Amino acid sequence: MRIDILSVVPELLESPLNHSIIKRACEKGIVEIHIHDIRNWSKDKHRKVDDYPFGGDAGMVMMIQPVFDCLADLTAQRSYDEIIYTSPDAPVFNQKTANELSLKENIIILCGHYKGIDQRIRDHLITREISVGDYVLTGGELPACIMTDAIVRLLPGAMSDETSALSDSFQDDLLAPPVYTRPAEFNGWKVPEILLSGNHAKIKEWQDKTAYERTCMLRPDLQQDSTN
Amino acid sequence: MRIDILSVVPELLESPLNHSIIKRACEKGIVEIHIHDIRNWSKDKHRKVDDYPFGGDAGMVMMIQPVFDCLADLTAQRSYDEIIYTSPDAPVFNQKTANELSLKENIIILCGHYKGIDQRIRDHLITREISVGDYVLTGGELPACIMTDAIVRLLPGAMSDETSALSDSFQDDLLAPPVYTRPAEFNGWKVPEILLSGNHAKIKEWQDKTAYERTCMLRPDLQQDSTN
Repeated sequence: MRIDILSVVPELLESPLNHSIIKRACEKGIVEIHIHDIRNWSKDKHRKVDDYPFGGDAGMVMMIQPVFDCLADLTAQRSYDEIIYTSPDAPVFNQKTANELSLKENIIILCGHYKGIDQRIRDHLITREISVGDYVLTGGELPACIMTDAIVRLLPGAMSDETSALSDSFQDDLLAPPVYTRPAEFNGWKVPEILLSGNHAKIKEWQDKTAYERTCMLRPDLQQDSTN
Repeated sequence: MRIDILSVVPELLESPLNHSIIKRACEKGIVEIHIHDIRNWSKDKHRKVDDYPFGGDAGMVMMIQPVFDCLADLTAQRSYDEIIYTSPDAPVFNQKTANELSLKENIIILCGHYKGIDQRIRDHLITREISVGDYVLTGGELPACIMTDAIVRLLPGAMSDETSALSDSFQDDLLAPPVYTRPAEFNGWKVPEILLSGNHAKIKEWQDKTAYERTCMLRPDLQQDSTN
């Protein structure tokens, strides 16, 4: 899989994409991640990529031309399954979206910044808009990292133990059950006895029950979604 | 405001917290961000901070002792309004949470990693659990950056133009209206004429109308929430 990320502040993306699972997946050749500085496509002598909004509001707007030219260069070299724009005013990313995108071959993620990008880019060149949640951030760089992380860890070979991902939250519309590790007692706080019993059938039953109870308590909407 | 972030892979946090609005807010003394490597509190000679889960599942679990000791050190030095744990199985962060947390003085964000932390830390030491969305990530480091970014930009003086934040999505349960900048025509694509009219009352009316229409189309749930 290949992921191209377009940003006006590419330095924000450095550390999250160069450590841990993503780094190892890149080294193993499971994924290629290319970060592009949109300023490199600016025709302005000061490498300007933003301008004042029409209508006289506060904030700046990402200009069409540099993004248009950057997308033209990339799409001339290969075909992309999706050209994604990150923005808070878009459908919300979830584990199903991550599963779906992990099956694509080439995707572009265009990071929104400032007050967002000129709407004409969204209308004419973007194939999919995604928000990572109902909050406003400085830019789409962290959301691009979030999406990349959620997608890459699903690629075969990316995680050292793939069965681990299967027991994560959301894969079955359930939150994960609580986890415990040694010591069995710390500061007077004990691990539930069942987990020390060695009875794997009983342990599995307890985990399923607590996962279901936690989901009903914290996120009843997940269970409703799964029965619809 | 002071934000302490506890992580087993603190290097992941570097670039997002050292650029743009967060960097400037730190330089202006509006916020102090302290990153703590949990390994520094490990009593293991290999600085181990994780161990196998009780019950025999896949994945590793963050051990109690290093986190317990790190939290003890911090809370001995000052009182914290919240000790937050980032985890996908928790109530979901949104703009209201960001607004609320931006009014606190001292907060700790403990980043979950691996399969999560020993449940006893959550039961006894955490005051609030937050998820940034319904997807599973390598760790809570990106969520900690997301929360920090969403909170810091709300602090007085953090943004160069504070009126800009007021017209962002979610602040009034509406998505933001579309934005446009120069040129008025690009590749045959034109800016809506109303925005070029100079009639500010009409422009405001058009923006309110499109914001409302986009919200009804993309996120009708936001409008339902606001009328409840």
